[in-house]
Amino acid sequence: MSQASPSQPDWLDEIKWTSDGLVPAIAQDYETGQILMMAWMNRESLVLTVQESRAIYWSRSRQKLWRKGEESSHVQQIHEIRLDCDNDVIILKVEQLGGIACHTGRRSCFYRVLNNDQWEAVDPVLKDPTNIYKSKS
Amino acid sequence: MSQASPSQPDWLDEIKWTSDGLVPAIAQDYETGQILMMAWMNRESLVLTVQESRAIYWSRSRQKLWRKGEESSHVQQIHEIRLDCDNDVIILKVEQLGGIACHTGRRSCFYRVLNNDQWEAVDPVLKDPTNIYKSKS
Repeated sequence: MSQASPSQPDWLDEIKWTSDGLVPAIAQDYETGQILMMAWMNRESLVLTVQESRAIYWSRSRQKLWRKGEESSHVQQIHEIRLDCDNDVIILKVEQLGGIACHTGRRSCFYRVLNNDQWEAVDPVLKDPTNIYKSKS
Repeated sequence: MSQASPSQPDWLDEIKWTSDGLVPAIAQDYETGQILMMAWMNRESLVLTVQESRAIYWSRSRQKLWRKGEESSHVQQIHEIRLDCDNDVIILKVEQLGGIACHTGRRSCFYRVLNNDQWEAVDPVLKDPTNIYKSKS
């Protein structure tokens, strides 16, 4: 363990945080390489992600921690965390529990392709979103 | 072709741009799925990316268009462009010419892994950076 305080380990200070104290985090399937989503993290959420070995983001819209899967059970288990050469983007290599990362019920949030000047949805809905979140309704 | 003006096609307006007029773009190897880098685009750079079928970013540090490969010849040829469910992140599936995306001479900018509270460089330098950019020295 680092000798720095738990909330401010040295590796955390190497990250170039935005003026809002955030860093973008790309979640990628650790086996297939498919990019599942991109969200944002603050220091607390990244420390918790490492501690709990599951993806915990910072929700900019709700201004609170977002434990991915807290409602859907679609938890992202961490296999590896990478940092880029500019210290300002993170990759989370994850195992996507339930096989669905997107709130639309698709595997990946990047399900639309630019075709003939239109964003065309090309990936299937694997589960009706009303059934993903029904435990909270 | 869209009936909108070339500089403001409809598909461009569907993107949720930041207050600075930017959107993050993740470059991913179209064959292996490896994430190569993340950079930013403005409207002009994305339109040019589509028109020229090569990645053209907006350099926030230099405040100018950044034609990836303009100095290094490490051009990224576009195979597919995807948009996420929140309309605020793009994936470029690319063929990385020269096999090197990072200015450090590595294949990917994400060459460091968090290991034992340290960011450890785990991927090899494929080419000395001084030889990548020597044509401009």
